[in-house]
Amino acid sequence: MTDPDTEYCHVDGTLVPAAEATVNIRDRGFVYGDAVVETLRVYGGEPFEWAAHIDSLERSATRLDFEEVLPPRDDLHDRVTETLAANDLSEAFVRLSISRGVQGRDLTPEPRVDPTITVVVDDLPRGGTDGERVWDEPATLRAVETRRPSAEALPPDGKTHNALTGVLARLELPEDADEALLRSVEGYVTDGADSALFLVHNGTLYTPTTALPLVPGVTRGVVLDIASAEPFPVETGRYNLVDVREADELFLSNPAWEVRPVTEVDGYEKPVGPITQLCQRLFDRRVEQTHY
Amino acid sequence: MTDPDTEYCHVDGTLVPAAEATVNIRDRGFVYGDAVVETLRVYGGEPFEWAAHIDSLERSATRLDFEEVLPPRDDLHDRVTETLAANDLSEAFVRLSISRGVQGRDLTPEPRVDPTITVVVDDLPRGGTDGERVWDEPATLRAVETRRPSAEALPPDGKTHNALTGVLARLELPEDADEALLRSVEGYVTDGADSALFLVHNGTLYTPTTALPLVPGVTRGVVLDIASAEPFPVETGRYNLVDVREADELFLSNPAWEVRPVTEVDGYEKPVGPITQLCQRLFDRRVEQTHY
Repeated sequence: MTDPDTEYCHVDGTLVPAAEATVNIRDRGFVYGDAVVETLRVYGGEPFEWAAHIDSLERSATRLDFEEVLPPRDDLHDRVTETLAANDLSEAFVRLSISRGVQGRDLTPEPRVDPTITVVVDDLPRGGTDGERVWDEPATLRAVETRRPSAEALPPDGKTHNALTGVLARLELPEDADEALLRSVEGYVTDGADSALFLVHNGTLYTPTTALPLVPGVTRGVVLDIASAEPFPVETGRYNLVDVREADELFLSNPAWEVRPVTEVDGYEKPVGPITQLCQRLFDRRVEQTHY
Repeated sequence: MTDPDTEYCHVDGTLVPAAEATVNIRDRGFVYGDAVVETLRVYGGEPFEWAAHIDSLERSATRLDFEEVLPPRDDLHDRVTETLAANDLSEAFVRLSISRGVQGRDLTPEPRVDPTITVVVDDLPRGGTDGERVWDEPATLRAVETRRPSAEALPPDGKTHNALTGVLARLELPEDADEALLRSVEGYVTDGADSALFLVHNGTLYTPTTALPLVPGVTRGVVLDIASAEPFPVETGRYNLVDVREADELFLSNPAWEVRPVTEVDGYEKPVGPITQLCQRLFDRRVEQTHY
């Protein structure tokens, strides 16, 4: 992930070499971060959970009030497929972004929107089952001082180009930590800077509720879905740092990491426990069954 | 301001036609809004309050932890001056932005930063004294539901490309309103979406304190400075919507509007009162004395 090897990107309907893949400096996605984005995984040539990601993209665009300019789903799917083909990739990480485009010099958006649609893909071999995962080791997690903005300030279920809170959280990390643990202003744990958080206590799987200001990621939804078919209880709610530090097991999820165990949080060591391992196997099976 | 007429922009040290002024789609300023910005005014060919704006730019970059890559002030001044000359402008609105540049595909910033520095200028004739102001009429102000993020979520004194809170606030406005009035999550008024707020009660000038999550704009600082030399008291503090609605006078300030009276807030009509008019005259005199 740190050494991208994209050769071609898709910009506004055209494949262009990565070095020439640009947006105008007046694009509102650059000026204000006025753009929506989905990051997703491609397995065996097909986007994983495509419908859920496009639902999420539409919801994000609705939050920013330009959902009416999103092209049809098939059109977006074509752009992703063309970009994958141009880079000769069938196992990939994809970033699909739609900005409000170039407008006049005013914070207030103009009603007429000509969106800027970009697709960037990177080689990312499949994890799980036969493949090797992106991460070499389980994660080390650190609670940071940076907090998630309240829902009244930025809609948490809109994935946008306003990602500085996550950037600032990561900047707080010491070198030996992999992910920053964020909280709401009130002190409830929400998620990692770029991942969803899951806790296990006494055989129950917990994850922070979307009533808190957290990104309801698609991978989080997949984990909740596969876990709900298992015999152990699954709950969403409000948890604090003590709950996290005293958890029996902890793991993170996002499209790149899939299900990644946490073996240390703020100095507290954790095992890679049975429910974490089961969720990993179930996630891998879901990928296997739907894509290979 | 809604019909920009820039012909040349400055991008990474080179003057380029506006249509070709671009950044790579992997630039962190586009991907995450990971960039700092100042908007400022040029009168008589010289940036107004240049030192204060560059102080502010440096503070913003410090908040994002890339202040060490900012070029010397003279270098930035040259870029602005070259852009003005290329567009044959001596009365202008300037947007100077510095992003963390293109990096790998990870939310965590890499230590090595090659910043992207852009300058956009637009013709903006001088207001006040002899000139015509940008705005045709005093402003109509509306309190909105969107709130400023808490300081723990986004540093309010960092002016960045994460401006969606202001965009969302403006999207709430009815057609007949000019500016959105924001509050903190706790309910204290902070500022306009793109302007500072001043209130007058019984002969005292008030403005929300920077202990609240608000942008401490340079124009706000100039108004406080010129007002402090006058015989009426000037105070900063925490005020609520009732204080605003019951104010004797209200005005807004930013580089484009300078000092703009508010004659209606949430249906309450306000006069363009004596302290507002005095602040306008003093602001115009400051511009006159320093630039012409």
